[in-house]
Amino acid sequence: MVTAKKSVQLSGVVVAESSICSIDPERGVLMYRGYDIADLAEHATYEETAYLLLEGELPSSSELDAFCEELSARELPDSVNELIDANAGSATPMAMLRTATSALAFSDPAEAAIDGGNERRKAAALIAQLPTIVARYQRRREGREPVAPDPSLGYAESFLTMLRGESPTAEEVRAFDVAMILHAEHEMNASTFAARVVAGTNADMHSAIVAAICALKGPLHGGANQAAMKVMEEFRSVDAVAAGVAARLEAKQPLYGHGHPLYRALDPRVPILKSFTERFAREGDPTFHDLAVAYQQEAYAQKALWANVDLYSGVLYHYLGIPTDLFVPLFEMARVAGQAAHVLEQHAGGKIIRPSAEYIGPEPRAFPVRA
Amino acid sequence: MVTAKKSVQLSGVVVAESSICSIDPERGVLMYRGYDIADLAEHATYEETAYLLLEGELPSSSELDAFCEELSARELPDSVNELIDANAGSATPMAMLRTATSALAFSDPAEAAIDGGNERRKAAALIAQLPTIVARYQRRREGREPVAPDPSLGYAESFLTMLRGESPTAEEVRAFDVAMILHAEHEMNASTFAARVVAGTNADMHSAIVAAICALKGPLHGGANQAAMKVMEEFRSVDAVAAGVAARLEAKQPLYGHGHPLYRALDPRVPILKSFTERFAREGDPTFHDLAVAYQQEAYAQKALWANVDLYSGVLYHYLGIPTDLFVPLFEMARVAGQAAHVLEQHAGGKIIRPSAEYIGPEPRAFPVRA
Repeated sequence: MVTAKKSVQLSGVVVAESSICSIDPERGVLMYRGYDIADLAEHATYEETAYLLLEGELPSSSELDAFCEELSARELPDSVNELIDANAGSATPMAMLRTATSALAFSDPAEAAIDGGNERRKAAALIAQLPTIVARYQRRREGREPVAPDPSLGYAESFLTMLRGESPTAEEVRAFDVAMILHAEHEMNASTFAARVVAGTNADMHSAIVAAICALKGPLHGGANQAAMKVMEEFRSVDAVAAGVAARLEAKQPLYGHGHPLYRALDPRVPILKSFTERFAREGDPTFHDLAVAYQQEAYAQKALWANVDLYSGVLYHYLGIPTDLFVPLFEMARVAGQAAHVLEQHAGGKIIRPSAEYIGPEPRAFPVRA
Repeated sequence: MVTAKKSVQLSGVVVAESSICSIDPERGVLMYRGYDIADLAEHATYEETAYLLLEGELPSSSELDAFCEELSARELPDSVNELIDANAGSATPMAMLRTATSALAFSDPAEAAIDGGNERRKAAALIAQLPTIVARYQRRREGREPVAPDPSLGYAESFLTMLRGESPTAEEVRAFDVAMILHAEHEMNASTFAARVVAGTNADMHSAIVAAICALKGPLHGGANQAAMKVMEEFRSVDAVAAGVAARLEAKQPLYGHGHPLYRALDPRVPILKSFTERFAREGDPTFHDLAVAYQQEAYAQKALWANVDLYSGVLYHYLGIPTDLFVPLFEMARVAGQAAHVLEQHAGGKIIRPSAEYIGPEPRAFPVRA
């Protein structure tokens, strides 16, 4: 029995065996199914990475073709399109993603089924459909016509085209693809754990992913890259970063984009994302890349804090012309692959997750007698 | 550190301190905030019970009036009405409840706020609005006009009137009210835990409750009273129960409505619910009450299993004319009060819930070189 004091956060408590992801916090290594994230970022596509997460092995050429075919079914049911169109002006991005993902189940041919075949089909459908939800929502709230998904395009190019209404460059496509690869999985984070708690009751894939979205919506989980961008916007110029970091430390404000509950070294996703923002900075406006570099240096110099994935991912999305309040939906678009893999794993072997609480409330008392 | 084998279920692992609910599994006692469930079922209304759960103390007369006023705001936003009307024919009950509850946040004036005032307001709104979602959905899928909520009625009477389109008897109202009281809270069950995992990221009340609905949707959690009804429907007659129970045991099928992960005695909610079904049986068709009594006797005689809350709650709902596939939404209508109390508690003192997994997957391997 874990003591109540230590258990309140459940931090570090092993709650499952998993074959999906391993993290070496001391050396700063992140692996999906045994493959180093740096290798995947160099060699793989997001489609291959998602397949790897779901199936446990990289796809053969024909398996990849079949999976990409599945992932090209990006159209939303009419009822979900109507939901988005009717509420894009009032719903926040994550409230919309949560609701629209939930509504996708209405037209699923076997919404409650949790056999491997149905779950695997639903996982691919969610990976395919979430980007369409995000892009359509964004177009509608801007008062613009949605851009229909093009099944001939890859995952990253399709999304950027739907979002922006014009074709991205090859460099933009690859940068976005790599960002999706790097966000696709990260072991037992709060959103993945929420998905597993829900899956543990034998609830269906859509329910588990909706619960994951609910957790990712929390600013302590999904909101950090958005918060890191806001901090850099406040710094405004590289010259102001040293004093800005000092002021935040003085005021005990978090240095968003730095520190991690696990890593005791540089987050391995940082140098990869930074290599992309560096290229965009060279070719365009260097402001936010330079701000991030200075912010990284000062956070380490003043507080010995390592940068994390959130520092440069926001900068990268900024260079891709993506509004800051879509950063969390983008996180979920990528992470749904890892979450779905955990749901499959939970349903294959896990049981109901039903912990306990230590009661510290009032002693037994009688119901007051009324006059 | 909990070992992996024991931790897979997290069963009995203390994950939080809580002042909301205490269970004595050996004696079969369930208390909300120190009040015995039997006292609450005898003396309190669901409104008083919900107030007790949220606030920690029973309301004074004026506090109760103010709270009932809050709970009488049962109208749904137009966008949620439209969502229900457009999808009642295709959505399953819990998929609809999940989606419509999520959509309620679109029109919340501060959907992301987690300060005590906003959270408390949202909790009351959810308690008030969930019954309207369930009733409107039911009316629409039957092809009938929805019945608008009547703010002059109490919680139970309002719901039964909306659902059935006619006024219930006083006995029906009280029976339903007591069923809601008995389902309002039960410590760290999977749905409540899901709500706390989500709340731990500082996500908002709607997100936490949506995640709870996702978990309750799973047949291992919310589905047991529905499953118990189906078992009794299969028995058909009291004479067939002994052989039916023996056959299920022989086939290693669960005796739904019996056994509990916690109680080692009679679930204290059983005799209370049974006293109501007994009255309905005396006044009308005794079939299902008699089946439940026989089922309870045989499960204890043949397998020493105690009945749980799910055995007679389904029978009670059946006597109230409620379709079997609404039993789980009804469970959530009641339980949302307890879940919301846990969200308030989590936000008042808890931190992010980020456990760990033990990696048992492939060893590090190189990305295959392509031709």
